[in-house]
Amino acid sequence: MQIPVIAMQRSITFIGKINSPLRAIGECPLQESEGAPEAEVIIFPEFIEGAKDIKAGARVLLLTWLHLADRSIIKCRPRNNQEAPLTGVFSTRSPDRPNPIGVHLVNVISVNEVGVIKISALEVLDQTPVIDIKPVIQ
Amino acid sequence: MQIPVIAMQRSITFIGKINSPLRAIGECPLQESEGAPEAEVIIFPEFIEGAKDIKAGARVLLLTWLHLADRSIIKCRPRNNQEAPLTGVFSTRSPDRPNPIGVHLVNVISVNEVGVIKISALEVLDQTPVIDIKPVIQ
Repeated sequence: MQIPVIAMQRSITFIGKINSPLRAIGECPLQESEGAPEAEVIIFPEFIEGAKDIKAGARVLLLTWLHLADRSIIKCRPRNNQEAPLTGVFSTRSPDRPNPIGVHLVNVISVNEVGVIKISALEVLDQTPVIDIKPVIQ
Repeated sequence: MQIPVIAMQRSITFIGKINSPLRAIGECPLQESEGAPEAEVIIFPEFIEGAKDIKAGARVLLLTWLHLADRSIIKCRPRNNQEAPLTGVFSTRSPDRPNPIGVHLVNVISVNEVGVIKISALEVLDQTPVIDIKPVIQ
């Protein structure tokens, strides 16, 4: 059976994964500024060349695939506050959304040649897939 | 044939598309700050409820799927400058990358109830799929 081209085009490639002490959703802060721990991005071997110019001290956008999210959610109560009004999900940072992409502004602490990037505060679970890294443009 | 769960989880859902006067890649500025025109986000009917709380004047992160990108690229010359050194793609904003996700910081000019969101300067092609909108957290 041949896979239609459009299906391949819409499929996300995992370029790496997160190493973090956060092992359960209940442990995760809602934002990286709320006491999130340091973490590591482990770049998979076939993508290490793409990460070779990332430098310690850089501020980067890290994109993750929040793989445990509920993708059927269109409205939610922000910050899990049951007294907040039901809000359209695109006005919230809820991980439960049609495309569970996390966008994180992080500081690079160190990088090594085997594709391990140590970063400042990150609020996602251990083993979360990484899908992109971009420089921040001021 | 049953589709494996992991394959479904990795598939991007298009929540809308861009209406823009940019009709060819050669017309697109490299960044939104470089003379990009106004554009509209057309939210597809099944996702309009998710966008209902986006307000005129808001500053939002718009995520697009740069559907014409070359996803095999790991190194490139930034800003198409043939004299620039080959650079790891994760240190550039090139649309040609393993996951061609555009992250755009835009101002909302107006919103209507049928899911049309007019936004300031955007540098992507007409008909580019939209995959997420998030509020900016200061």
